[in-house]
Amino acid sequence: MKQIRIVLAGPRGRMGQEALKLIQETDHFELAAAVDRIHDGKYISDIEGLPSLKAPIYTDIEKCFQEVEADVLVDLTTPEIGRFHTKKALEYGMRAVVGTTGFSEEDLQELRQAAEEKGIGCIIAPNFAIGAILMMKFSQMAAKYFSDVEIIELHHDQKLDAPSGTGLKTAELIAQVRETKQQGHPEETELLPGARGANYDGIHLHSVRLPGLIAHQEVLFGGFGQSLTIRHDSYNRASFMSGVKLAVDTVMAVDTLIYGLENIIE
Amino acid sequence: MKQIRIVLAGPRGRMGQEALKLIQETDHFELAAAVDRIHDGKYISDIEGLPSLKAPIYTDIEKCFQEVEADVLVDLTTPEIGRFHTKKALEYGMRAVVGTTGFSEEDLQELRQAAEEKGIGCIIAPNFAIGAILMMKFSQMAAKYFSDVEIIELHHDQKLDAPSGTGLKTAELIAQVRETKQQGHPEETELLPGARGANYDGIHLHSVRLPGLIAHQEVLFGGFGQSLTIRHDSYNRASFMSGVKLAVDTVMAVDTLIYGLENIIE
Amino acid sequence: MKQIRIVLAGPRGRMGQEALKLIQETDHFELAAAVDRIHDGKYISDIEGLPSLKAPIYTDIEKCFQEVEADVLVDLTTPEIGRFHTKKALEYGMRAVVGTTGFSEEDLQELRQAAEEKGIGCIIAPNFAIGAILMMKFSQMAAKYFSDVEIIELHHDQKLDAPSGTGLKTAELIAQVRETKQQGHPEETELLPGARGANYDGIHLHSVRLPGLIAHQEVLFGGFGQSLTIRHDSYNRASFMSGVKLAVDTVMAVDTLIYGLENIIE
Amino acid sequence: MKQIRIVLAGPRGRMGQEALKLIQETDHFELAAAVDRIHDGKYISDIEGLPSLKAPIYTDIEKCFQEVEADVLVDLTTPEIGRFHTKKALEYGMRAVVGTTGFSEEDLQELRQAAEEKGIGCIIAPNFAIGAILMMKFSQMAAKYFSDVEIIELHHDQKLDAPSGTGLKTAELIAQVRETKQQGHPEETELLPGARGANYDGIHLHSVRLPGLIAHQEVLFGGFGQSLTIRHDSYNRASFMSGVKLAVDTVMAVDTLIYGLENIIE
Repeated sequence: MKQIRIVLAGPRGRMGQEALKLIQETDHFELAAAVDRIHDGKYISDIEGLPSLKAPIYTDIEKCFQEVEADVLVDLTTPEIGRFHTKKALEYGMRAVVGTTGFSEEDLQELRQAAEEKGIGCIIAPNFAIGAILMMKFSQMAAKYFSDVEIIELHHDQKLDAPSGTGLKTAELIAQVRETKQQGHPEETELLPGARGANYDGIHLHSVRLPGLIAHQEVLFGGFGQSLTIRHDSYNRASFMSGVKLAVDTVMAVDTLIYGLENIIE
Repeated sequence: MKQIRIVLAGPRGRMGQEALKLIQETDHFELAAAVDRIHDGKYISDIEGLPSLKAPIYTDIEKCFQEVEADVLVDLTTPEIGRFHTKKALEYGMRAVVGTTGFSEEDLQELRQAAEEKGIGCIIAPNFAIGAILMMKFSQMAAKYFSDVEIIELHHDQKLDAPSGTGLKTAELIAQVRETKQQGHPEETELLPGARGANYDGIHLHSVRLPGLIAHQEVLFGGFGQSLTIRHDSYNRASFMSGVKLAVDTVMAVDTLIYGLENIIE
Repeated sequence: MKQIRIVLAGPRGRMGQEALKLIQETDHFELAAAVDRIHDGKYISDIEGLPSLKAPIYTDIEKCFQEVEADVLVDLTTPEIGRFHTKKALEYGMRAVVGTTGFSEEDLQELRQAAEEKGIGCIIAPNFAIGAILMMKFSQMAAKYFSDVEIIELHHDQKLDAPSGTGLKTAELIAQVRETKQQGHPEETELLPGARGANYDGIHLHSVRLPGLIAHQEVLFGGFGQSLTIRHDSYNRASFMSGVKLAVDTVMAVDTLIYGLENIIE
Repeated sequence: MKQIRIVLAGPRGRMGQEALKLIQETDHFELAAAVDRIHDGKYISDIEGLPSLKAPIYTDIEKCFQEVEADVLVDLTTPEIGRFHTKKALEYGMRAVVGTTGFSEEDLQELRQAAEEKGIGCIIAPNFAIGAILMMKFSQMAAKYFSDVEIIELHHDQKLDAPSGTGLKTAELIAQVRETKQQGHPEETELLPGARGANYDGIHLHSVRLPGLIAHQEVLFGGFGQSLTIRHDSYNRASFMSGVKLAVDTVMAVDTLIYGLENIIE
């Protein structure tokens, strides 16, 4: 596989540190440079806690693009900075994989135009958890054939909101492809209120909160004499890295802007 | 193993038919006779749909006890008849395994006295699903060490009540051994009402209803960095038969009345 | 939804009886007639054990097609008879959904030509278990993003072969889309032989056999900090009926022959 | 609950750091002092990476016992040091909870005598994962009623041995209570070698290895029309802390030596 030289913005953040590991462990990835708010002129290997990669750190992203030869910017910073970095990358003809949120429709339109003018790829993905994205995609596909579905999402007990964002999004995606349907027996009664969970367009959602758990979701479909279950377990932040890897590999082969990892998964 | 000769009351009912299969498939069980409301004087093998067992059918249980040599009455009839049969069995010095409900405290007291006078066993069990009983027992044991627990019970969508009886009983058994505790984050909020399920003494219960499902329950315990899950799947009525078998084997070795299968499980 | 009038061949077989239930329970399905080896001139409602549907029975399928107005033949007979029925249906301009095996490449070619000449649909599917087909399809899709996968299939303990046909087929489908890969640690050792299961092109398969179980399969994918699991539980023969229903609805809208249910699932 | 003052030996180790968190988070636990190879005279709060607990550090355990008033020594060091610490604790009349291995039968005999002479408790447990211990205990109990069982253990793909130690120990515990039995169909055949897993006294074990996974085990029991599953998921090292907590609470109430956490679980 052709070597891909990466500029990483945000190397000291939680996601950034995972990305450093990913680059180290992936044979055809190579760290060309890093962009950080501080540590200008040092090397990644100089920073305590980071791996011993001999890549220079820049605080000025333009200077970095001028001096360093690279293929892709991987940006794992913050919304404000991410927008600025993405714009600059495309200006310098550098492909970009961006993990921040906060892009307006206008931003995206402008960036798409820039990418297409240069004929290079740009992938912006607020969620890199490829397993979760596949779970949602498969759930939507299955709902065409099984109209009865319930969602159980399980998280650690420090989580404040129920249902989870992923749980709700899964229900939305399913609701898009099936007719509204009230599930369960029309005369069912709750002996204890809440037993049948939350109701989103007839789809029941159940939120389990227990210490020890991390982030898990099961989507259960039932039909004549059978059930089909799709489950995703996210054990730690590294779960985002499969998605970053896929995006970096994909961005090399496209020549427009793609928003959302679900759109590069067939 | 010593051969055990059985009189089966209720051979044509759903449970009774499963019991006939159990007796056929168990080497040390033997059908001595059956007690039925009709078909007096015929043989089991004469009745369409029943297995070809050459055991006589009686409508009069006393006549049956007088003419047939047997060890145990297995009664799978109805509450009213079951009470009468059990009383008669003990009068005739016949051990009894009874699967019907509807015994009052007074009934049980009287039957216990009869069993002990004769020095024979009598086991009355409204629920023979040994797997479900083990699930409840283990859940109660685990709750001593993991005070955070949620219950998910899953049934076909023709079920009217939520939570299920087994779900509620499991919560009760757990509540007996742990201090009342509100689980989850104190400030958690339901974005959709019901998401966190029903609440029984701080234990959350979730009822899933889908076509295709039969009768399933999961009890999830969470603690520091781990979870423990106990799950029972009941696929069909045959699931009661392990309990009937255990009760028949046990009733031969005891000399009093035992109520509830959970009391013969160590 | 437009009413669909069905001729069912094989109404007394196991699959056929499930199909009768399906037709009864589906609002827009209607039984026009049945084709059976015996019982010519009777009605379905005359046959003991069958539902009280007032549909005539024919032993001669051509006579049936001449006298009865219908939209689709559903054939759940045997390979030899199924081939003959399918050919006749297309001759008479009747769409067909066929659940038998044993069609040669030549047969399929000939039938496709007949279907296309008449401009009507014909769906032949040796496996109607739509949940199992989705499980295989999703597994193949997921394998593009997660190259590490293991398969656990669980069946009742009367099953002779391990792994199951579905387990092997799933492994084959996955192997088609990923590069050959030996999974697990290169130096892993089995303290007990067989612990790591069977190996198909580097994919490990595990076969569990226990009494009580029916037919279940889990496909587990693992990647950075996460796992994705796709599970299908088949509880009874009714599980084929979702597939029959889908095929009947689909056959009304196509004008060629389709072989394999996986080809009508998007 | 009565306050328990703890001396922690090994505060900088992985287990030790988790124990510091446990002590912080548990209302009735209090850190009286720590014993460490270095840092004599400092406080826990002085050491980078440790929580801000104002407890003094000693390198000499005897000096610690002389100067500090405490109830329990929690030792999470190494076998050699652990043995020495335990002996000293009992000499000074201090109860001990010890997580190291390497005690000989002779050591245990001597320590038991010392504990009983002083009338104080001492709990030595090579495995504090209380969820795993409950899983094994429940499995042994269930095996009395369900003689058919298979074990699936799932670990990350860097694990070298298959089956895992816990998997093998579970099989051993089950084998102790059931008659040897070859499970599955007597004529079953493996189309691919290894499909049916490893065989320990007729019990089948299956080892799954996937990246992303941590340490998981499922014990599946099957019987007439039902299955019972006991599953333990260990997500990280904190999973040992429930066991340490239980042992500390228990050691206050006993007056002898107990070896193995399974012996303080009812």
